[in-house]
Amino acid sequence: MAYYILDESKIIPYLLSIDTLRSFFGTDKLEVSEIGDGNLNFVYIIRAVNDLKKALILKQAVPYLRIAGEGYPLSRERMTYEIRSLLIHNTLIPKHVPDVLYADEAMSVVVMQYLDEHIIMRNGMIDAVVYPDFAEHMGRFLAHTLFKTSSLYLSSLEKRDLMEQFVGNAELCALTETFVFTAPYMEHETNEIDPLIEPEAKALREDHDFKVAMLGLKYRFMNQSDALLHGDLHTGSIMINTEETYVIDPEFAFFGPFGFDIGALVANLVMSWVSHFERSKDKDYQSWILETIVVLYERFEKEFLLLWSESEQSALIEKGFIADTGLAEYQKSFMKDILQESLGFAGAKICRRQLGIAGVADIRGIEEPHSRARAEKMALSIGTYLVKEHRRMSKITDLSDYLKEMR
Amino acid sequence: MAYYILDESKIIPYLLSIDTLRSFFGTDKLEVSEIGDGNLNFVYIIRAVNDLKKALILKQAVPYLRIAGEGYPLSRERMTYEIRSLLIHNTLIPKHVPDVLYADEAMSVVVMQYLDEHIIMRNGMIDAVVYPDFAEHMGRFLAHTLFKTSSLYLSSLEKRDLMEQFVGNAELCALTETFVFTAPYMEHETNEIDPLIEPEAKALREDHDFKVAMLGLKYRFMNQSDALLHGDLHTGSIMINTEETYVIDPEFAFFGPFGFDIGALVANLVMSWVSHFERSKDKDYQSWILETIVVLYERFEKEFLLLWSESEQSALIEKGFIADTGLAEYQKSFMKDILQESLGFAGAKICRRQLGIAGVADIRGIEEPHSRARAEKMALSIGTYLVKEHRRMSKITDLSDYLKEMR
Repeated sequence: MAYYILDESKIIPYLLSIDTLRSFFGTDKLEVSEIGDGNLNFVYIIRAVNDLKKALILKQAVPYLRIAGEGYPLSRERMTYEIRSLLIHNTLIPKHVPDVLYADEAMSVVVMQYLDEHIIMRNGMIDAVVYPDFAEHMGRFLAHTLFKTSSLYLSSLEKRDLMEQFVGNAELCALTETFVFTAPYMEHETNEIDPLIEPEAKALREDHDFKVAMLGLKYRFMNQSDALLHGDLHTGSIMINTEETYVIDPEFAFFGPFGFDIGALVANLVMSWVSHFERSKDKDYQSWILETIVVLYERFEKEFLLLWSESEQSALIEKGFIADTGLAEYQKSFMKDILQESLGFAGAKICRRQLGIAGVADIRGIEEPHSRARAEKMALSIGTYLVKEHRRMSKITDLSDYLKEMR
Repeated sequence: MAYYILDESKIIPYLLSIDTLRSFFGTDKLEVSEIGDGNLNFVYIIRAVNDLKKALILKQAVPYLRIAGEGYPLSRERMTYEIRSLLIHNTLIPKHVPDVLYADEAMSVVVMQYLDEHIIMRNGMIDAVVYPDFAEHMGRFLAHTLFKTSSLYLSSLEKRDLMEQFVGNAELCALTETFVFTAPYMEHETNEIDPLIEPEAKALREDHDFKVAMLGLKYRFMNQSDALLHGDLHTGSIMINTEETYVIDPEFAFFGPFGFDIGALVANLVMSWVSHFERSKDKDYQSWILETIVVLYERFEKEFLLLWSESEQSALIEKGFIADTGLAEYQKSFMKDILQESLGFAGAKICRRQLGIAGVADIRGIEEPHSRARAEKMALSIGTYLVKEHRRMSKITDLSDYLKEMR
């Protein structure tokens, strides 16, 4: 089907032209409403008027940034990679990925499960909501999605075939390269720096050690193709309630370093922890966050190694190639590398959120300017430390211990 | 054009159906002869009968291993990557890559310059021929092909676009993964182990440290996409005389780690050096080889850094991102990493040539069995050292000094 933009009037005829969706809704009268908070794409809820629980989400990419308008072109093919990633992640760990009912790469459209009982995790964390199973859920999500798209699990041909499906997502990779690893640490028109932290921003722009370390992380992001990443795994890409956790919006999906998704998640938990010194001042909530970081990482690591122990033959390790003691030694340094890299990427993600175009509501949403600036400075200090020192850290509690010492 | 296999009777009509080639040969009567030593492909020389200098090479891939026959299928699409790589390398450093007159991916055919005054470098080195400009030529070849296909030179979109053109060469990458990094170090039906070195082969099969290091190298080969590599850059892929040097046969081309091509070349020079303890016993020739290894590497490094200094803006380094002192520090660790990795890959390449399916004529061609076994053992010992110790080495003379200590 040739591409066209679905406005509200075209959505119902489009849906009813597709067998699966027609049988989903039956003969019910339908209503369409736009969800206003899509930054990049148009997102609609389609419901049966007489049965509001019978509802689906339709998401369509347009060849520009939705939030900025047609003057800001962005390839709509990003939806191709979102669709591919959703389908693959859904196969690998269905419990934490919405069901996809229909996908159409040519139309840049995906139709999926409506998560009506879940909210964006960032908003929940701003309100200091505890999610008791989040660490367990996301530890497993990370282990399964990363391990099972890596050379530790796939055959050589399967891995390169999968890479071929994502190597075209260059435009979105370039956005990350610019806005996470580059622009925030130099004079750049896109930066949004709070005047109250300009001295700290300037110090970072002149910090050679920080920049050398940042180049190392950026190089790794660009040239290390460990596994299929979500590519933008912050707390705004997670729909959650106290029982369930779903990962959405993988349009940045590409083959990159193991630590990038892990680091993104850790960074956003750390920023929430920082924000609550100013927001709730709820020490119990902050303790829960620190514990969650540790449990999340340990759960990831345990599950990753469990999957590894079950994988007898992969692109990397031919059955019988290495004895258990040798393998254990290799795994130890392999896992340490993932940990360090994750902390380094977490640092980059934290810094860019203080200086660059895209802040996080947890911190930038703090209304009182001096309170906000205190949070920004604290976050920047943590991020800088992680970028510069991640190669000296060897376990996840090195991070939580460091944070506990901060105040 | 649909694919068909060109036998000798079909070649001239095929050539004359192509404008460029028809005008190259004019109305001359042509003769076709097969070059018998193609392992993978059919290779023909086409000459004007009355002007033997007017000649071209036609190379066609068939959907199997030429040397082994139709029972050994191998995707003929390998020629697609050879063509693409030849054309790119020819643009980057035309002096050391044959001219391509015509290429046809659908027919898996390339027609190129006939290098009638050059021989395969391996054969020249077996005869102890000195090539005074080889180190200079290949240092420049490596610097230009590696630097200019990397994130240090291309934009992010250019780099990923180029990667997209090579990610499909999975079958040949898998061959390297098996035959360089895996099979030779375990019980494997494809191995060809000289009974006289079986104790050494067995020791290696049981050496945990060696295997852990080998997994690290293999992982890097599979997951590090620094630059477009030749992929099989041994002295059999070089056509040479005392004045000119040409690189041929890049069908293994893919995006991989910087050090892999460098390591392949260093490995083959080292093996020639080893072989001459048994062959010529010519100490001057051996000294020339050691000096060549050092000059080759230093020339590569110097030229690579020169190109870097001329590159103001790349995917990795935005203009103005980092001050010169910071950049110099980053470059220092970057170049050290390439050196170490190159030596590690050299080690893997040396070891596999002693134990695996594909030996090198320099050593396996030594006729007296005990003499040959001495060379094999020495090579294996050097290769093992490089695989295990490359992370402790910091300059190319660490290798030449180590070799000088051997006897």
